[in-house]
Amino acid sequence: MHLIIDGYEGDPHRLADQEVVRALLDTVPQEIGMTTIAPSYVCRYEGSKPEDWGISGFVLIAESHLSVHTFPERGLLWADIFSCKSFDADRLMQAVQEAFSLREARATLLGRGLEYSEELAPTAGRAASP
Amino acid sequence: MHLIIDGYEGDPHRLADQEVVRALLDTVPQEIGMTTIAPSYVCRYEGSKPEDWGISGFVLIAESHLSVHTFPERGLLWADIFSCKSFDADRLMQAVQEAFSLREARATLLGRGLEYSEELAPTAGRAASP
Repeated sequence: MHLIIDGYEGDPHRLADQEVVRALLDTVPQEIGMTTIAPSYVCRYEGSKPEDWGISGFVLIAESHLSVHTFPERGLLWADIFSCKSFDADRLMQAVQEAFSLREARATLLGRGLEYSEELAPTAGRAASP
Repeated sequence: MHLIIDGYEGDPHRLADQEVVRALLDTVPQEIGMTTIAPSYVCRYEGSKPEDWGISGFVLIAESHLSVHTFPERGLLWADIFSCKSFDADRLMQAVQEAFSLREARATLLGRGLEYSEELAPTAGRAASP
């Protein structure tokens, strides 16, 4: 499954804080029962307009990833968690909303992953078979 | 915008090749007019079942990211490219299909990013204003 979070009206100071992004990436996977397979990576970027800067971060989890992009001066955040296995989307949504004090957030949940691929493409699991 | 690619019946050898994943992450952003802001990261992971291993890769691009997860023994691939700006989704889809010789692929395009957020939440751009 894939949870997509589009957040609005967040706290600009928290959205601008690399440590807030890193703390989220480092603690949330374990809270929802996932195993990190690589260190988290967080950096600041500068866009083409002065107000378009922000923090980007991602962490690779077994069979999945968690990514965050923020735009502090616009109060915006985009987060994704994709996993081949199911997870507690409500808990993740709550963690992201709290981390950045989002006043509004839109969640979209997509069916993706092993259980879905077997339904959608029954031949897929046999692709590597003789 | 956010392009989601679910690929089936790919070439198991290419899906298992870290260099194929890395080459995609290192060349595609430039081809679609984007700027990489951090080195790509690629690793192999092992799942809880013997057949559930694969390659995961990620690269951060200005205001966006590109991620790939493969399951060689199942012939499966999941790729995402999210960007706050628009990009050539057809070209990206073609690059991913060719890289892994996917016989089937499903693309889903979501409206996300600055132009969409301004439509959806007119107050969002003012979150950091006095």
